[in-house]
Amino acid sequence: MTDQASITRISDEIAKRVKSRLSESDSLSNPPSFNPREKVLIPVSVSGRHIHMTREVLESLFGKGHDLGIYRKLSQPGEFAATEQVTVVGPSGRAIEKVRVLGPPRKFTQVELSRSDGMRLGLELPVRRTGDLSGSPGITVIGPAGTVVLSHGAICATRHVHMTGEDARAFGLRDGQIVRARFAGERGVILENVLIRVSDRFALDFHLDTDDSNSAGIDTGCFAEIIP
Amino acid sequence: MTDQASITRISDEIAKRVKSRLSESDSLSNPPSFNPREKVLIPVSVSGRHIHMTREVLESLFGKGHDLGIYRKLSQPGEFAATEQVTVVGPSGRAIEKVRVLGPPRKFTQVELSRSDGMRLGLELPVRRTGDLSGSPGITVIGPAGTVVLSHGAICATRHVHMTGEDARAFGLRDGQIVRARFAGERGVILENVLIRVSDRFALDFHLDTDDSNSAGIDTGCFAEIIP
Repeated sequence: MTDQASITRISDEIAKRVKSRLSESDSLSNPPSFNPREKVLIPVSVSGRHIHMTREVLESLFGKGHDLGIYRKLSQPGEFAATEQVTVVGPSGRAIEKVRVLGPPRKFTQVELSRSDGMRLGLELPVRRTGDLSGSPGITVIGPAGTVVLSHGAICATRHVHMTGEDARAFGLRDGQIVRARFAGERGVILENVLIRVSDRFALDFHLDTDDSNSAGIDTGCFAEIIP
Repeated sequence: MTDQASITRISDEIAKRVKSRLSESDSLSNPPSFNPREKVLIPVSVSGRHIHMTREVLESLFGKGHDLGIYRKLSQPGEFAATEQVTVVGPSGRAIEKVRVLGPPRKFTQVELSRSDGMRLGLELPVRRTGDLSGSPGITVIGPAGTVVLSHGAICATRHVHMTGEDARAFGLRDGQIVRARFAGERGVILENVLIRVSDRFALDFHLDTDDSNSAGIDTGCFAEIIP
């Protein structure tokens, strides 16, 4: 990010937060049960529905030797939203188009959907950590060069925060810890069962799905307050 | 409700709650900041998108002298989901079909949508109490006998609980109070800015929109714990 872009982002964020504070209702001016002087604030990225895939699935959907194009870099180092998109179909017979492929290819194929996507597709999606796919429902994935019928791999991702070891020490949090996260505002929520994931390969970022972001009225660029 | 139906409903609810408790993570076995021995539990109804309308708008959409049919009675005495449905269109040019009409006709026309509906229609929906429509965006409503272009009336309803004066006294709550509401489970949330509405014309019921219910993974028939 250039300095100019940083300044714009920070300014927008401050404006948004001030506006949000001003619109807070009476319940929020009462002292909360946690100490507001020790707030842990974490930037948020809203994760739209997306698919991670193996190289084998990638080639079945897009053709032999196909490499993913980079549409946009993501917050996690090396990760990117690809130019490629797929269609997914569930047992309801209904399809969801333009599901973004994330790269680079992984060791497993995983379709991350919201609960409302699951209802549309006729899938009861389990809430799972990434890669924990045993017993998850199957789904059909359609690309320009072919269709893959996955026997499992459709999940609703566990709410989670990525952070480095240094971040975790600074915040007093540890890998695998379950916390709550608060979003202020007129549609304020406190999300429970948020998983802290610590690795020096990560960058600080809170990943939410679109059901959560729509409920709370938040967008990428907002901040969440972690309540240990 | 017949006794048999009551038993079925209670059994289903207990099964659901036990399942939910078993799936709760570590964060929930820690003592919460409120006293769990004094829980105020309120039944929840998920409100899909719907429209209340004046008799004038009703006749413009469905024809002169048209009366609403009763599709299903609602929790609030006298209120019903009508057999009639409409299509709504916003500035994005996209339509949402099968928006349920609620009866009986009211003194104002109000379209209650979720934030994700608003995004689809190209509307920035304000969060409002029922009937508080000044400055809310307009929307086009299409029925079998005509189309009405509303200059205002599209809102995202404030999260609210209906209760009688007797309920309010029992729970130690008052009309207009803003509370928090907790839903347990692996997608647990605490919703903030929930409005308590007290009237002896009401029946006890917590009204949530589909963004909130999808975020929390809950359905009509669940219970919310009120945190004053």
